[in-house]
Amino acid sequence: MSGLEESIRNAKAAAIRLAAADTHTKNAALTAMADALDRERASVLNANAEDVLEAKQAGLQPSLIERLKVSGEKIDGMIAGMRDVAKLADPVGETNYSLKIDEGLTLHQIKCPIGMLGVIFESRPDVVPQILSLCLKSGNGVAFKGGSEARRSNRALFDVLTAAAASAGIPKDAFVLMETREDISLMLGMHHYIDLLIPRGSNEFVRYIQDNTKIPVLGHAAGICHVYVDDDADIDVAVKVALDSKVQYPAVCNAAETLLVNSKIAEKFLPIISGLYAENKVEMRVDGESKRLIPRGTATVDAKDEDWDAEYNDLVISVKVVKSAEEAIDFINTHGSHHTDAIVTENKDRQLMFVRSVDSADVFINASTRFADGYRFGKGAEVGISTNKIHSRGPVGMEGLMIYKYVLVGNGHAVKDYVGKDAKKFLHEPTDERYGK
Amino acid sequence: MSGLEESIRNAKAAAIRLAAADTHTKNAALTAMADALDRERASVLNANAEDVLEAKQAGLQPSLIERLKVSGEKIDGMIAGMRDVAKLADPVGETNYSLKIDEGLTLHQIKCPIGMLGVIFESRPDVVPQILSLCLKSGNGVAFKGGSEARRSNRALFDVLTAAAASAGIPKDAFVLMETREDISLMLGMHHYIDLLIPRGSNEFVRYIQDNTKIPVLGHAAGICHVYVDDDADIDVAVKVALDSKVQYPAVCNAAETLLVNSKIAEKFLPIISGLYAENKVEMRVDGESKRLIPRGTATVDAKDEDWDAEYNDLVISVKVVKSAEEAIDFINTHGSHHTDAIVTENKDRQLMFVRSVDSADVFINASTRFADGYRFGKGAEVGISTNKIHSRGPVGMEGLMIYKYVLVGNGHAVKDYVGKDAKKFLHEPTDERYGK
Repeated sequence: MSGLEESIRNAKAAAIRLAAADTHTKNAALTAMADALDRERASVLNANAEDVLEAKQAGLQPSLIERLKVSGEKIDGMIAGMRDVAKLADPVGETNYSLKIDEGLTLHQIKCPIGMLGVIFESRPDVVPQILSLCLKSGNGVAFKGGSEARRSNRALFDVLTAAAASAGIPKDAFVLMETREDISLMLGMHHYIDLLIPRGSNEFVRYIQDNTKIPVLGHAAGICHVYVDDDADIDVAVKVALDSKVQYPAVCNAAETLLVNSKIAEKFLPIISGLYAENKVEMRVDGESKRLIPRGTATVDAKDEDWDAEYNDLVISVKVVKSAEEAIDFINTHGSHHTDAIVTENKDRQLMFVRSVDSADVFINASTRFADGYRFGKGAEVGISTNKIHSRGPVGMEGLMIYKYVLVGNGHAVKDYVGKDAKKFLHEPTDERYGK
Repeated sequence: MSGLEESIRNAKAAAIRLAAADTHTKNAALTAMADALDRERASVLNANAEDVLEAKQAGLQPSLIERLKVSGEKIDGMIAGMRDVAKLADPVGETNYSLKIDEGLTLHQIKCPIGMLGVIFESRPDVVPQILSLCLKSGNGVAFKGGSEARRSNRALFDVLTAAAASAGIPKDAFVLMETREDISLMLGMHHYIDLLIPRGSNEFVRYIQDNTKIPVLGHAAGICHVYVDDDADIDVAVKVALDSKVQYPAVCNAAETLLVNSKIAEKFLPIISGLYAENKVEMRVDGESKRLIPRGTATVDAKDEDWDAEYNDLVISVKVVKSAEEAIDFINTHGSHHTDAIVTENKDRQLMFVRSVDSADVFINASTRFADGYRFGKGAEVGISTNKIHSRGPVGMEGLMIYKYVLVGNGHAVKDYVGKDAKKFLHEPTDERYGK
């Protein structure tokens, strides 16, 4: 057994103790973590200065160095984040529903942690306090690995925070910091210990993780989002949605990559939106029909086949005219990534058809795809955005780190009394009784 | 592309149309299926007679032939089952919660089908109408395979039922019946088409499926359930629970395999329960301390190491004395299968500790492990019992075939208005508004 496997096995065992920790202890630990980070800013800043120096010497891109750098202000943000998590309601032990099975026999479905998580993220040290605080509050153990450029910063943060958590009575072994790429490969094989993987990073990286493990993976490998402008669209609404979905922040997964326009409205809509896209320096890759309808003075590029499956993450959009909402839906289900797709229409039946038929985590009506985000969805903290078909879908908050167990409370109840000739009958009545509260 | 792959790809596309089918159409299809089976009993009975004849000639065990055999009464049961599913509430489109994000901008989390399921089951033809009706009502496509001994019966049922569903406007392509073992191997590789696998069968079979696919598997490979009798147990309750958990029906996954007894109550409890076990012909495999406390006249067998990890599915139980509830919990988490485990105690703190610390789908207090069952849990229909840590856990009903999507309804809302200097604020207020109702 490797050192890492032993650490993760121990973490799984410690996670069971963490799952049983009470709310008071967990909140005291989060406060202790925030206080400790405030006290030990110097050690984190020193470690980070070494990481930044090395990154500069290695010629890392300025934007990546900016993400890597920890400032006093960023530490303030980390501290505030941990205090916010302390204020969140404790999900562990919450009752989803209760059912009276018979007199004196009550079933409760209660929330509990999943168990042991694996988290892999890019070079942003501020993710360390985020992950530690969310896992601690939700009662999950975690093994995690950040970018190697940030290894000294991550280690300094991890040591300060886990020591503070331990001082408040939280089993420290439940948290493991990994430091090498080899550790990731090893972890991908540990499906007996790790219940869920959460990778954050490039599409290629997430796909690599998905393709190389039996552990369920929460996340998304691509964000190919569509806006479909229906013939019953309000033109003003269509303009707002098509523009914001592309230009408000094009580098991210929930920005639109393809605009589909119904042929009955295209002649009116395309000249307007193409002018605005041009003004905003958006390159348009267009099909023949769109090209014909966009005024000659506006520059376009002829779309190639691969444009319909492309995630640009940039000021580029593919544009296509379709004959019907049905064609748009088929196109989205075929070429999209099941992430976020929007329809613009005033027609209620077509809204409902779109909502029911588009196989995506987020289906939006008359609103920008850019709203697909944990913060905007009111989740407090975002764990990631999932395109999975089971467990969690779309923006995932702390609820995605929870599962449930059934608690049946009786008083010597035996199944033999409910079978055979004089069998007692089950009541199966919903009840407001709660377990353990 | 193999013929099977093409069928399953088409089924996935048809499943999207099925997901959008309205409640009235789905219920009409279920009624049509029940009526058609009633009308075409002869074709099913004839096909089954051929299967049974072949099975007898092949020397199949009488108990398996009994399960394979379809009678008029069994057909009555299948028909009644489909009419019951028609009466169940339609989960598709139900709103889990709604949130007012801002004026005119509302988020709804609504229930929708997972998409495309793979189901593999043993030689019981009555599973065919069960699966078809549950998948249809929940809006899921399904590829399924029954035992090869029942292949003519399964085919006859499948043809009658899917033709009836199609006549009511349900896309028939959404359902695929597989007939060879090779088909199963092929299906295990189709993670691009199939979203969830549900295998029913022996532990070895389920483990084989889990070990040979990237598709999430809903189910359990073992049922090693425990009863722990605490020192604060009521002796009468302990006797009822320990007896029923073992002897009421020992062949199944939720029967107890190990009895743990606190040393402070063992001297009182073990003589009573060992007498009752002996009366009920239960073989006891005991540790040294249990042996010392069980009266000499009562036969026992010395437990070997492997007894603590054994699933007997028979009138055999391993018995061990432990020093504390903590020791019992550690033992259960180490040797159990995370299925169903019970504590018998009047002590509320110890009940809560057991509930929070035993890492099992079902944690029972003063009740028989045999209650762990979809029917007894009031689920109407049982899809299976899951020991997974994500999505569905414990007895799973139709709710396990559902996921959700987010519907955001706006009126031209753009993210740009919620960022920067004059940013609008999000409301994030719960609302009773429902989408599409």
